[in-house]
Amino acid sequence: MDQNFLLQSATAQELYHNHAAKLPIIDYHCHLNPKEVAEDHRFRNITELWLGGDHYKWRALRSNGVEEKYITGDASDWEKFQKWAETMPYCMRNPLYHWTHLELRTAFGITKLLNASTARDIYDECNEKLQQPEFSARGLMRRYNVEVVCTTDDPADDLRYHRSLTPNPSPVGEGSIGKVMGKSPSPTGEGSGVRLLPTWRPDKAMAIDNPTSYRAYIETLGAAAGQEIRSYTDLLEVLQKRHDFFASVGCRLSDHGVNEFYADDFTETELSAIFRKVMDGQMPTAEEVSKFRSALMLEGGRMDARAGWAQQFHYGPMRNNNSKMFRRLGPDAGYDSIGTWNTSESLSRFLDKLDSEGLLAKTILYPINPSDNEMIATMIGNFQEGPVPGKIQFGSGWWFNDQLDGMERQMNCLSQLGLLSRFVGMLTDSRSFLSYPRHEYFRRCLCNLIGRDVEEGKLPREEMPFIAQMVEDISYYNAKRYFGF
Amino acid sequence: MDQNFLLQSATAQELYHNHAAKLPIIDYHCHLNPKEVAEDHRFRNITELWLGGDHYKWRALRSNGVEEKYITGDASDWEKFQKWAETMPYCMRNPLYHWTHLELRTAFGITKLLNASTARDIYDECNEKLQQPEFSARGLMRRYNVEVVCTTDDPADDLRYHRSLTPNPSPVGEGSIGKVMGKSPSPTGEGSGVRLLPTWRPDKAMAIDNPTSYRAYIETLGAAAGQEIRSYTDLLEVLQKRHDFFASVGCRLSDHGVNEFYADDFTETELSAIFRKVMDGQMPTAEEVSKFRSALMLEGGRMDARAGWAQQFHYGPMRNNNSKMFRRLGPDAGYDSIGTWNTSESLSRFLDKLDSEGLLAKTILYPINPSDNEMIATMIGNFQEGPVPGKIQFGSGWWFNDQLDGMERQMNCLSQLGLLSRFVGMLTDSRSFLSYPRHEYFRRCLCNLIGRDVEEGKLPREEMPFIAQMVEDISYYNAKRYFGF
Amino acid sequence: MDQNFLLQSATAQELYHNHAAKLPIIDYHCHLNPKEVAEDHRFRNITELWLGGDHYKWRALRSNGVEEKYITGDASDWEKFQKWAETMPYCMRNPLYHWTHLELRTAFGITKLLNASTARDIYDECNEKLQQPEFSARGLMRRYNVEVVCTTDDPADDLRYHRSLTPNPSPVGEGSIGKVMGKSPSPTGEGSGVRLLPTWRPDKAMAIDNPTSYRAYIETLGAAAGQEIRSYTDLLEVLQKRHDFFASVGCRLSDHGVNEFYADDFTETELSAIFRKVMDGQMPTAEEVSKFRSALMLEGGRMDARAGWAQQFHYGPMRNNNSKMFRRLGPDAGYDSIGTWNTSESLSRFLDKLDSEGLLAKTILYPINPSDNEMIATMIGNFQEGPVPGKIQFGSGWWFNDQLDGMERQMNCLSQLGLLSRFVGMLTDSRSFLSYPRHEYFRRCLCNLIGRDVEEGKLPREEMPFIAQMVEDISYYNAKRYFGF
Repeated sequence: MDQNFLLQSATAQELYHNHAAKLPIIDYHCHLNPKEVAEDHRFRNITELWLGGDHYKWRALRSNGVEEKYITGDASDWEKFQKWAETMPYCMRNPLYHWTHLELRTAFGITKLLNASTARDIYDECNEKLQQPEFSARGLMRRYNVEVVCTTDDPADDLRYHRSLTPNPSPVGEGSIGKVMGKSPSPTGEGSGVRLLPTWRPDKAMAIDNPTSYRAYIETLGAAAGQEIRSYTDLLEVLQKRHDFFASVGCRLSDHGVNEFYADDFTETELSAIFRKVMDGQMPTAEEVSKFRSALMLEGGRMDARAGWAQQFHYGPMRNNNSKMFRRLGPDAGYDSIGTWNTSESLSRFLDKLDSEGLLAKTILYPINPSDNEMIATMIGNFQEGPVPGKIQFGSGWWFNDQLDGMERQMNCLSQLGLLSRFVGMLTDSRSFLSYPRHEYFRRCLCNLIGRDVEEGKLPREEMPFIAQMVEDISYYNAKRYFGF
Repeated sequence: MDQNFLLQSATAQELYHNHAAKLPIIDYHCHLNPKEVAEDHRFRNITELWLGGDHYKWRALRSNGVEEKYITGDASDWEKFQKWAETMPYCMRNPLYHWTHLELRTAFGITKLLNASTARDIYDECNEKLQQPEFSARGLMRRYNVEVVCTTDDPADDLRYHRSLTPNPSPVGEGSIGKVMGKSPSPTGEGSGVRLLPTWRPDKAMAIDNPTSYRAYIETLGAAAGQEIRSYTDLLEVLQKRHDFFASVGCRLSDHGVNEFYADDFTETELSAIFRKVMDGQMPTAEEVSKFRSALMLEGGRMDARAGWAQQFHYGPMRNNNSKMFRRLGPDAGYDSIGTWNTSESLSRFLDKLDSEGLLAKTILYPINPSDNEMIATMIGNFQEGPVPGKIQFGSGWWFNDQLDGMERQMNCLSQLGLLSRFVGMLTDSRSFLSYPRHEYFRRCLCNLIGRDVEEGKLPREEMPFIAQMVEDISYYNAKRYFGF
Repeated sequence: MDQNFLLQSATAQELYHNHAAKLPIIDYHCHLNPKEVAEDHRFRNITELWLGGDHYKWRALRSNGVEEKYITGDASDWEKFQKWAETMPYCMRNPLYHWTHLELRTAFGITKLLNASTARDIYDECNEKLQQPEFSARGLMRRYNVEVVCTTDDPADDLRYHRSLTPNPSPVGEGSIGKVMGKSPSPTGEGSGVRLLPTWRPDKAMAIDNPTSYRAYIETLGAAAGQEIRSYTDLLEVLQKRHDFFASVGCRLSDHGVNEFYADDFTETELSAIFRKVMDGQMPTAEEVSKFRSALMLEGGRMDARAGWAQQFHYGPMRNNNSKMFRRLGPDAGYDSIGTWNTSESLSRFLDKLDSEGLLAKTILYPINPSDNEMIATMIGNFQEGPVPGKIQFGSGWWFNDQLDGMERQMNCLSQLGLLSRFVGMLTDSRSFLSYPRHEYFRRCLCNLIGRDVEEGKLPREEMPFIAQMVEDISYYNAKRYFGF
């Protein structure tokens, strides 16, 4: 894992070192805790930072036969780390193997391989460094030259942490959103600050299939807007208010976690009745759920279009498959996987409805099942429209696809069926402050793909200045322009 | 893009230059306008030839943020070409980048790369050449050593253009079908003529989900056969008449554009009632549509089997997704994409019904979703039967899959799950007289795959004569024998 | 096809020759005839051995245009072999080409390529060798250093052949199961014997969609257990008895051939009624079939968990597509293919039901549609649980995927989404005593993948001892530990 890691040709190396590597990171979708950013969290130790909430690692530990005690149980931090170190070699060929060592190297300067025999040394060295101020939450972001971070937030959230970092928000216009959180030179030699922006994620407003928790949520949402929600119409009104509020704090994106797409026909009367039924504590039928979601997704799309935001759809996972562990640990504990659904028709109808109204926002589609890659890469072509280049995007390899093969497949598919040159590139989607090397990983992968094409005569060497620009665009500039950061 | 473009080994180069390159082209499925062939159309300029109806390019332009005015709107030919030239570098890694430069090189002898700065020169040079007689429709076909072209025609078509080129048609037997349209040596040094044959494409006869247009079509169809169609039985009679007529003009293939396959059970009484209902202007139910299509597909299959034709099924696309643009531009304007349907069961039933009757014609299946590749590559094995080698074919990478990765996937999949050696190979499926380099592209890709296997010891070098024959078969001879040209 | 066949780097060669090659074979799933093992069958000739029941070869012959007479018909053994020899070159790039020549080389020491001109010589040489005692069924197993073979057996089977080879069976504990069938040194220089173990395959107990044959089967099953089956409860009782019996003969695995998974809700009353209905000769509804199968699959899972077995699910094929040939030849005659179904939800529910009860056995999932690879590779992660490493397995490339590309895709997918290191590896799934070279093929493929990663710097050379151990584990030790052989 030297400086030319993954860069298998001279052209790839030139593209990476002279173009991709030097650019800041725009991490336009992640699950960082805004409180930890705002309060510049200090980490107890590497176990907290690495193993506290990383369900990728939890899954690997369980697959390796480690007992739950050492994963989410009451074992000590050292014991948990030790189990992880022992598991590490068994992760060879899994992205965790590369990620872990990239993180050790780029954050802590550790080039030793993690395994049972190096565990203690690495544990101690990491923990010692984590005591230093530059290893705080924001310290790590500066180290990785992070320019913008978009968290994932519920419409009822008061965004206090985003606001605390944003004294003079102004929803549009580059350079004015978000307080620059520090100007000290980053370890990579670039001066940079970090902007922390919220993302509108209204999944709970869609979750009418659990009337009890839905009613509780509706109360919370109303309270956040200072308006009681008594009807479907009220709900829309409140959502619009909160949407405006998010915009005022600098929000530029929405995000939706869905299994499938919904594009049923419905009437206002039906929606009102469904809303009332659920608020009365009754379980809606599958058809009612689908109608209601169809409506809310459209409304959300309209709001996003009017606000000039981009809407993101992370679709296709099957969540909480293990009910025993769900009862014990709740969601996001490593029990999710890839579903198989045929969504092309409803997705098409959904996008078309918005487009027909002239209200199709910039849109990013992230399929979780790579068998859908070709469907998505061609679907986006149905709704491309000037003047925005790449208005509809096929999002980067996501979750389970966030690894070399997954990223290569996404980029190859987008290349063949759309325009790679207009791709907004990588995001971490992570809960960890140590995940920024995934951008490095992505950029190395990108440069390697393009470099190989040049070496094989599939791309013309005489267009190298354009090719270098394309690499820089995908690494950084496309996202900056697309989101208006 | 030199002479060894895509040929990454000495064996690949030997196979291509000494075997594949020299063979004529059999383009057994395309969407050329027969009138333009018959009248030997001369092109106004490169914009007409390239951008007049090519929805691949339109999609790329829209993805690049170009406004519709410059795509299908009232901008001048030069402005449209200019936008295309500017977009060209943004198409790197998309097949359009290779296709465009292959076309420039092989048709016009232009080796410059197209981009904003070369746009004017290339525009002028192409247009100047297009004034010359050898750049007419048939001139281009001769240039590319095209031996047979099969267009795509409606059963109601009078095939006047095919007939005008076919003084003494005789439906079976090699060498007698189609007038040889010219004997001047082609630029590649091969003497060749072109036969223009029709293909039976009865999609409109299936389209009962639009009663108004269906009734109009039925009238047209009846008129073409000189027989009023008053019942389902009449419809079958007329279709058979037209089928016979197509055969008399040299037709050897049918083709079907379908989303899914239909293999429902039905009764004659049901079909008669459905037909009457639609002719009375009523919308049939989904079940009725499916029954009706199931019946007509069977009838079509029987006709093809009796006539000794091959039947083709291009299945799986989701068409006209963008209703705003459909209202403006109609179909085939770049708003189609890949659908996700589970078709294995109905496809199997459909083929089995015909096979059980002893009336399963030679059949070519083209999936549009590459996720179906393995399903199709194994499905064909269920109905293979001597004495025809490769009686049931997995068609070449189609539409969105008509690029390096798509073609490689199709060929690798067919290789592993069937017999590549019996593959009837490439077709353009194109609306353009400049698409013949796609055959070159395919042959280079084929030779590269096989050459690599030889170099890696996966195929035995001592069988090189057989391997060379296999390359020639897939490039040309298999199709010639399979279709009986 | 020399000693470094498929081993494209020095590291791959080192891993294969020094680690993978020397290990015995555990063939934990196959379709060998136990009678032929027990009686140490001698083969009439190479036609019987190769072409007697191999539907892979039959499909290839049909695809090549060979008439059925020479495949399953009354042509002579020589004629059939001759047709196969003529077809061989047309199989280039199909796994049959490599398998055939690996078998010729490793079993018969023949390095000539099979084709029309070598057919007679190879036929004679093979047949001469087959007269020698070491080419008997068990002789071939010794030659290939086979340690354990698990056949596939119906619950009603009396396992007489397994028992005849197993004088002192003891269901658990290594080293005690199965009679060692011979101690002569194998040709590869390793001393080894072969254990023959049964596998519980209760597919017929699920097949209630054919009441007539179902009733007959239930009688057979009852007779085997010495208990008449009059009710659903009786059925479960008898199945448990037979399960215990299988365990007493050393069975360690169940296996299930299913299209889709079933996880419907049901009541005991419903199941009793469905059972009675079917036994009364009435066809159950689709819903009833699904409920019944849901119940039986759960019951089977519970039995396996309690017995400490591993359960296998081979899912997704669409069988007997060609009804004309089914009437003539019955099942398993080469008319099966890959289906498209969306099974993620029912599969998840099925596994979760067992897991919730604490009765989820070790489980191996084999999808037949590689489009499901990612779904399966992530599904297994939902139910991993210590202390068994790799408790839930993504089975090796199966049936149509049992070739280089299919095996590579399975291993790459498992690597990226799970832990390759814990993979139980290869099995033949074969009906032939000559299929053991598929283990060599698999091991070469495995070593090549891993070796390439080392050479490309994706795996660290300093961890070579661990990497070598991983290769040995996947080749042999993981299966030995996982199944408790």
